[in-house]
Amino acid sequence: MLPKSHPRYDSLRQRERLTEGYKAGATALEGLIAFGRGEAFDYLLGERTPQTALSAIEASAELLLSAKNPVISVNGNTAVLCPRELVELSEIFGAKLEINLFYRTEERVRVIAKILKENGAKQVYGVEPEALLKGIESERRRVDREGINRADVVFVALEDGDRTQALIDADKKVIAVDLNPLSRTAKTATITIVDNIVRAVPLLIDASKRLKTVDIKKLESGQTTFDNQQNLKNSLKEIITGL
Amino acid sequence: MLPKSHPRYDSLRQRERLTEGYKAGATALEGLIAFGRGEAFDYLLGERTPQTALSAIEASAELLLSAKNPVISVNGNTAVLCPRELVELSEIFGAKLEINLFYRTEERVRVIAKILKENGAKQVYGVEPEALLKGIESERRRVDREGINRADVVFVALEDGDRTQALIDADKKVIAVDLNPLSRTAKTATITIVDNIVRAVPLLIDASKRLKTVDIKKLESGQTTFDNQQNLKNSLKEIITGL
Repeated sequence: MLPKSHPRYDSLRQRERLTEGYKAGATALEGLIAFGRGEAFDYLLGERTPQTALSAIEASAELLLSAKNPVISVNGNTAVLCPRELVELSEIFGAKLEINLFYRTEERVRVIAKILKENGAKQVYGVEPEALLKGIESERRRVDREGINRADVVFVALEDGDRTQALIDADKKVIAVDLNPLSRTAKTATITIVDNIVRAVPLLIDASKRLKTVDIKKLESGQTTFDNQQNLKNSLKEIITGL
Repeated sequence: MLPKSHPRYDSLRQRERLTEGYKAGATALEGLIAFGRGEAFDYLLGERTPQTALSAIEASAELLLSAKNPVISVNGNTAVLCPRELVELSEIFGAKLEINLFYRTEERVRVIAKILKENGAKQVYGVEPEALLKGIESERRRVDREGINRADVVFVALEDGDRTQALIDADKKVIAVDLNPLSRTAKTATITIVDNIVRAVPLLIDASKRLKTVDIKKLESGQTTFDNQQNLKNSLKEIITGL
């Protein structure tokens, strides 16, 4: 057991969640490698949320609050890193939780659905997806007819660029959490939060609770002022300054 | 099977070697995460060997050629990424190959020794290590009496900072291959090659073959001119310029 007093407790605990997640059947081996890439970018951020991410989180809360049918896409890594927080996020926005996996197997879907339910999810979408998203070849094209298929806003994290592009091409707005401001996902999404998902989701929950008390009309006019490309440039600047 | 024509063949093939290495029992789950961190730094280098790495490789070849008892330390990741190249490197310098693992199990040692032998290694050290390296608590303290224990120069890759420091404290010279120029290993080693090991080892083999034709006295005077801290600063500059 990792002692809570360890100076790198948070970081090592995340790593432990991933290896436990693999052993439980939720996470793919490739998910562990992807997590490592995220660790490196988080290290370059100094393992703290940059100012640019706070702006993106604010804009994301506005977009999610004004969405008609928001969906939170869940994969093996996010399911083991912050399941409770994703469930809370879905409750705040009345958003659906949908499992969508690149390395999809029935077993992984089953384990991830179980994790989400154990963390309070009442319904999990994407368990038997019947609709197809155009423009991608991978298993990620399989989406729930009542979930991503009909969504106007999709929240994704630790994503592949192909699917983000396909979601945008299907006229959906995409909020992406991605530690790499240079990735295709980061550049393609409507709003990109350059931060670690374990920090970003709680901050998004807080921002949403705050905004819920504000006039919704004001929100709808506000969201158009966010410039994702400019914000990505500023994120990169923060990383370079850190170096 | 991954087609050789794929634009990201080299990178995806390395990833495949790691997941296959895990399934074969050579690589630890934590090794996959560490590999992912390396991928991110390699991405920042543009997946090519920087000029600074070439200087470090040149200095490393000189140091290894003048070593009395060089040892190449092998872990689960390096064993699956470039076993044949590590064996060739050991032959050029008359260096010993020693298995040294953070997550050491008898099974992993057995599988890694088998991989090295299948790739031409005549003798593998560190299978039943009896000596202890002072200053570290992990399984990595266990070293071969005739190997790292007596070595004057140790070649390490994808290393933890604690062991690099312990090797330096034991008056050994350390050549480290590390994609992160800011890591403790990078800062502590005698010579740090900031590059992907799959590119660095073949380049080190080439440099050594070239240098072997040169007068050894000239070599010995040459190696003192390499400034590792300055070279690391330049490596970081190359990364920032790339960004």
